[in-house]
Amino acid sequence: MTSNQATYHLHLETQHGRPVHLAPTEAAWHAAANRHPELARLIRITAGTDADIRDEALKTADFTIDSTPPRERLRERAPRLKWIQTTGAGLDPILPLDWLPPGVTLTNNRGAHGRKAEDSVTLALLALHVRLPALLEQQRNRVWNEILSAPIAGRTAVVLGFGDLGQAAGRAAHKLGLRVIAVSRSGKASPPADEAYPVAALDDVLPGADFLVIAAPLLPGTRALITRARLGLLKRTAAVVNIGRAAIVDYTALREKLERRELAGAVLDVFEEEPLPPQSPWWTTPGVIVLPHVSCDTPGYIDRLFDFWFENFARFLRGDPLVNAVDPKLGY
Amino acid sequence: MTSNQATYHLHLETQHGRPVHLAPTEAAWHAAANRHPELARLIRITAGTDADIRDEALKTADFTIDSTPPRERLRERAPRLKWIQTTGAGLDPILPLDWLPPGVTLTNNRGAHGRKAEDSVTLALLALHVRLPALLEQQRNRVWNEILSAPIAGRTAVVLGFGDLGQAAGRAAHKLGLRVIAVSRSGKASPPADEAYPVAALDDVLPGADFLVIAAPLLPGTRALITRARLGLLKRTAAVVNIGRAAIVDYTALREKLERRELAGAVLDVFEEEPLPPQSPWWTTPGVIVLPHVSCDTPGYIDRLFDFWFENFARFLRGDPLVNAVDPKLGY
Repeated sequence: MTSNQATYHLHLETQHGRPVHLAPTEAAWHAAANRHPELARLIRITAGTDADIRDEALKTADFTIDSTPPRERLRERAPRLKWIQTTGAGLDPILPLDWLPPGVTLTNNRGAHGRKAEDSVTLALLALHVRLPALLEQQRNRVWNEILSAPIAGRTAVVLGFGDLGQAAGRAAHKLGLRVIAVSRSGKASPPADEAYPVAALDDVLPGADFLVIAAPLLPGTRALITRARLGLLKRTAAVVNIGRAAIVDYTALREKLERRELAGAVLDVFEEEPLPPQSPWWTTPGVIVLPHVSCDTPGYIDRLFDFWFENFARFLRGDPLVNAVDPKLGY
Repeated sequence: MTSNQATYHLHLETQHGRPVHLAPTEAAWHAAANRHPELARLIRITAGTDADIRDEALKTADFTIDSTPPRERLRERAPRLKWIQTTGAGLDPILPLDWLPPGVTLTNNRGAHGRKAEDSVTLALLALHVRLPALLEQQRNRVWNEILSAPIAGRTAVVLGFGDLGQAAGRAAHKLGLRVIAVSRSGKASPPADEAYPVAALDDVLPGADFLVIAAPLLPGTRALITRARLGLLKRTAAVVNIGRAAIVDYTALREKLERRELAGAVLDVFEEEPLPPQSPWWTTPGVIVLPHVSCDTPGYIDRLFDFWFENFARFLRGDPLVNAVDPKLGY
């Protein structure tokens, strides 16, 4: 685990039961170190699970890869810490970032999810548009009944959040010929959006949506943003896609509306409790496709995270700014 | 039903149990006649079901809209007949066209299916790529298990048939970043194809396919073209989409390969017997999405067919060639 040449200490932290494709394990480190031997030679690592050795490791760690670092008296407990890397894009479990000591840079893994998210939203929009859940229910019941649908082009997608995921959703919708309305903090349009509005305009754009795609991070400004009242502004024929975070939407209200057929359907990749427990009503809610948080991740995810980390480590050595540094005030 | 000004007799023929969106009924005629009043004034119609009045009607009919016109002694039975319009694109039930009398033009409805087919193939490719059938089985069993997949871009789609449907499939695959290999009678490349080959090269291209999309008409040259041996050339990870005709593929062999997991999955919109009978094994074949022949049709289908017919009728009156005239030798 140690090397004579090592000059920096990196602590890898994961959780028991975490999907292996997302876990910064010792094995994943060694695979990555083989791809970056010159840089890896400068690093010694420790690796722990559920904070088993974390307190001890942080005493000497220069860097850590940890999606939920300890937030109390961090400077005191980790006097040499310079850089924390998370494995995901969303930082919601550790917001607000008021605990981050000066001189510690936090980087996330935004930008790793866009291409896959574009595919996932393309699939979700088309599946909802052709009423695939109803077609599949017919298949289960051995019923042949022609549910027809027009081409999807010309429909309207409202995309909430227009960062990496939102732009990916925008590209998906645009590629299918939909009108793309971006709703974001800035309200500024970027290429795949036909129109863009600030969050304050949400109530004005929801009634025109055929699809509402949630692609925002969970922040104080987005938590519970899609209330029961806002869901009520959607057409009965509208459908919802959530690849962001569950807590952005009032899921109880969403489920009730789907049960009462006041919305056409939903593709949900994120839930308040993951794994979704077996007794959850979501498994059987009509018109709903439940996905196990796979819409934005790909095989080899952790390998690419380590590659990204090594590239950033090279920047660190050169004294260049780290890529994907999070603004502690914005939380992304 | 008659009009003093009427100078042509059009007989509409449909079948009991035919999906209403595909049936040239009297009601659909009247709706269309309201959209084309000047032209409709020149027509008197008769409308029958299952040939109940067809023999009588054909004695005076100038035109008929009938997807399975009588093929014995047609000239004798329909001495004034000039033009037969079918409601679909595929003419397989009435091939070969050796029964078509000289002087009778047969037109089909090709070109009406492309935009919808493009959506359907986009959905099918993505659904198969992310293993949606397995994800949905997990949902039914309340199982949360991350089945991950890479972005679809860079995979290879072999598209059999490159007419309206095949080109639509090609556009779908191209839009998703796939390499598109067109296999057709001519072997000539058209825009959405990256490569094109004649049917004789099929055995050379099948081993490289991640997806095999059947989008050909059923003709003597395509019937049973995808044999058990050819299915055996596909990778175990390959998947099949059929929006053409069932009889192009050895469905028994396809089903056995899917049951044995020697293929990854299939989206099948067409079957030898439609509606697919309740006892069919296809309803529950693993990895298969059964669609009720809806991939290329849209609501308002028959209305657009009548609009197309009226435009052709105007050409007929001007002495111009009819659009979508079928070459009796080629059968399309």
